[in-house]
Amino acid sequence: MSATEYKTLPNFAAGIDGLLPAIAQDAASGAVLMMAWMNAESYAETVATGRAVYFSRTRKKLWRKGEESGNIQHVRDIRIDCDGDTILLVVEQVGGAACHEGYQSCFFRRHTPEGWQTVGERLVDPATLYKK
Amino acid sequence: MSATEYKTLPNFAAGIDGLLPAIAQDAASGAVLMMAWMNAESYAETVATGRAVYFSRTRKKLWRKGEESGNIQHVRDIRIDCDGDTILLVVEQVGGAACHEGYQSCFFRRHTPEGWQTVGERLVDPATLYKK
Repeated sequence: MSATEYKTLPNFAAGIDGLLPAIAQDAASGAVLMMAWMNAESYAETVATGRAVYFSRTRKKLWRKGEESGNIQHVRDIRIDCDGDTILLVVEQVGGAACHEGYQSCFFRRHTPEGWQTVGERLVDPATLYKK
Repeated sequence: MSATEYKTLPNFAAGIDGLLPAIAQDAASGAVLMMAWMNAESYAETVATGRAVYFSRTRKKLWRKGEESGNIQHVRDIRIDCDGDTILLVVEQVGGAACHEGYQSCFFRRHTPEGWQTVGERLVDPATLYKK
């Protein structure tokens, strides 16, 4: 691998307004926890600190996951995809719940012919999640 | 769950040019295989056929995964995230390799202080992948 390739990956220039999708996967269970966005700055801070830092598209600023709820993500592995434009973080999720609704995973609903069925177990009361 | 919610999820109106990120996860191993995009049409065809259909942002058309390589994805489960704007497909990957470079997962490279290290095993010679 050349130093050039190292520097150009992730390829934020290929992103949407400089943002790339970042997927968080639980290191222990393998569950896909959430998808968020990263810009170059949030990625650099993630690498430097070992904690997941995203970029909030709605708030238009860095989102240090867990800074309000305490549910930070310790990053155990960072993967890049073949095209260099999607990031996969393998994380230890402090508090168990990655989702602001109190579920382990944001993907707690499953498609059925009758509608969306909740299959995840709520680990935390969301009302308490942001009062720490 | 109301019928209205059923109809409005996934929330393609919240997407980027009508596109939402779609993550494919291997049903057997739990490995995150790839991330691609879906529009309403590709999602509807995925639900109707039970095979993963994405929308190619570069080719600007439906991408029936495996239509060239034969490596189709049988969809075993469809999940939606808390915001309704990211889709998770749990799939059986025919041929084992989801990645066009012949790896099981597109996320076959890991970040190290020295650069990106290939950690995935190449299952298929990519030169043969599109000659079926």
